[in-house]
Amino acid sequence: VTTICVPDAEARDLLGELPAGVEVVTWDGTGPLPPGGTDVSLLVARYMGAMTADALTELPALRVIQLLSAGVEAWLDRVPDGVTLCNGRGVHGGSTAELAVAGMLSVLRELPRFRQAQREHDWVATDTDGLDGKRVLLLGAGDIGRRVGAAVEVFDAQTTFVARRVRPGVHGLGQLPDLLGEHDVVVVALPHTPETHGLVDAGFLAAMPDGALLVNVARGQIVDTDALLAELTAGRLHAFLDVTEPEPLPPDHPLWDAPNLVLTPHVGGGTHGWQRRAYRLVREQVTRFHNGQPLENVVTDGY
Amino acid sequence: VTTICVPDAEARDLLGELPAGVEVVTWDGTGPLPPGGTDVSLLVARYMGAMTADALTELPALRVIQLLSAGVEAWLDRVPDGVTLCNGRGVHGGSTAELAVAGMLSVLRELPRFRQAQREHDWVATDTDGLDGKRVLLLGAGDIGRRVGAAVEVFDAQTTFVARRVRPGVHGLGQLPDLLGEHDVVVVALPHTPETHGLVDAGFLAAMPDGALLVNVARGQIVDTDALLAELTAGRLHAFLDVTEPEPLPPDHPLWDAPNLVLTPHVGGGTHGWQRRAYRLVREQVTRFHNGQPLENVVTDGY
Repeated sequence: VTTICVPDAEARDLLGELPAGVEVVTWDGTGPLPPGGTDVSLLVARYMGAMTADALTELPALRVIQLLSAGVEAWLDRVPDGVTLCNGRGVHGGSTAELAVAGMLSVLRELPRFRQAQREHDWVATDTDGLDGKRVLLLGAGDIGRRVGAAVEVFDAQTTFVARRVRPGVHGLGQLPDLLGEHDVVVVALPHTPETHGLVDAGFLAAMPDGALLVNVARGQIVDTDALLAELTAGRLHAFLDVTEPEPLPPDHPLWDAPNLVLTPHVGGGTHGWQRRAYRLVREQVTRFHNGQPLENVVTDGY
Repeated sequence: VTTICVPDAEARDLLGELPAGVEVVTWDGTGPLPPGGTDVSLLVARYMGAMTADALTELPALRVIQLLSAGVEAWLDRVPDGVTLCNGRGVHGGSTAELAVAGMLSVLRELPRFRQAQREHDWVATDTDGLDGKRVLLLGAGDIGRRVGAAVEVFDAQTTFVARRVRPGVHGLGQLPDLLGEHDVVVVALPHTPETHGLVDAGFLAAMPDGALLVNVARGQIVDTDALLAELTAGRLHAFLDVTEPEPLPPDHPLWDAPNLVLTPHVGGGTHGWQRRAYRLVREQVTRFHNGQPLENVVTDGY
């Protein structure tokens, strides 16, 4: 028998049918451990939720923590010895890439201005910018970056990929100083790690050409908020941000009213279908684990 | 010597270098015909502008009218006998498809609601709809339809194509009654012809499922405005429209304030790069014409 733990009854429903021999307990890490809890060997953590190190020590049989997010930075320090951490890579990639493209096109095609004109019943057909001929620099060559790249190429933009790991067709982060000045749009789709923390700083932004567009759908901590605010306020750069630092953005933060900025509240992964996709991944992982097969999406291997 | 006519000096500049033996006169169809006008054999018409039949009769040597638009309906009745009409197919396809995707994503990911929240400094991260798993029906399998299809497939939507001409992988318009109920998004990217006039009528809209999205980036006359208004007002359908009937939409028209509608003022083709693309096409056509080669984008052949 393999015992797994999910955060709530809705998650249990979304899991659907599991292999014979898999038992499910429901616990979100608060309150007393339910019956069977000490047998839990695979834990599914709540999306964007926290679980204390104390709660984890209540699970003596724990061997795998399965996250539903792509980002793992909140967990890296609290995984007990001998426990494998798996992330939700692929669950949010499509919807996050979709939002990056939606926001990018919204800025380029000036949809907020046309929305205002609609409210005012004002038919003013003025030309706008567009992707045709634009040079788009993708920071991150994983699922999100690849999808954004494929979409913008449909509209005759050129793509360049940069990632932490150099490989054929993908430049390293060290090449950024040479690349930034040659691109009209920069899309941040990198994980938040010590290497990427504050990567988009004042020097990075200053190297972007006048009128260039920054898109961040990754993590707010990768961008120096004050430096970006200065460039937006100066009217030199445009931005679409789905993530900010801090988050949530306090009501009195100056970023809300920055010019040339479209902002959404970290909803890249937040489409109705995400839980269905997430628990399809969990079902597959549980089945692999129960059958002794290698897990996918392993971030740190505790074996 | 081949004499061509362009509407203004800006057009002349955009044409760049032409083959030896090509002379250019500038005339927009109003006022007296300039010197050399009676020799004009190829006329470039102003984009979205009109030219009277009287003006055309002032050009006795006319053999070709080159439009910069994909749509030709305003010209079909006024092409003199023996004159070939060519359209601007390909000039606006990319930017029109781009706007269709921008508008579609804006509706699905609720960007107008998040824009309002940004104005109000309100961080409310609620889930939205998205393209994943959506069934998208493309009406039109030309440049625009194909590009929209390629883009939505990047985000895990399924595509079905319908066009006036049945061919492998493309259904005929007669199949629409069977197809409409099985699709979540319908994109209109058909030319306006007698066959497509009013195609999207009350019955068409009634066959779309509850909550479905209509996107029209083609011509307003293809959609029955009153029927669509009724569905939007009832809250049953959503729409993104870049084109309307009438156009421009009068300030007191009820469509402006219809719920679940994002509206732009016929700017599908209106990106900064379009004139560059348009006059590249014109230069190629003029070169072909001067050299006696077959023209491209021929709509009605006057030879």
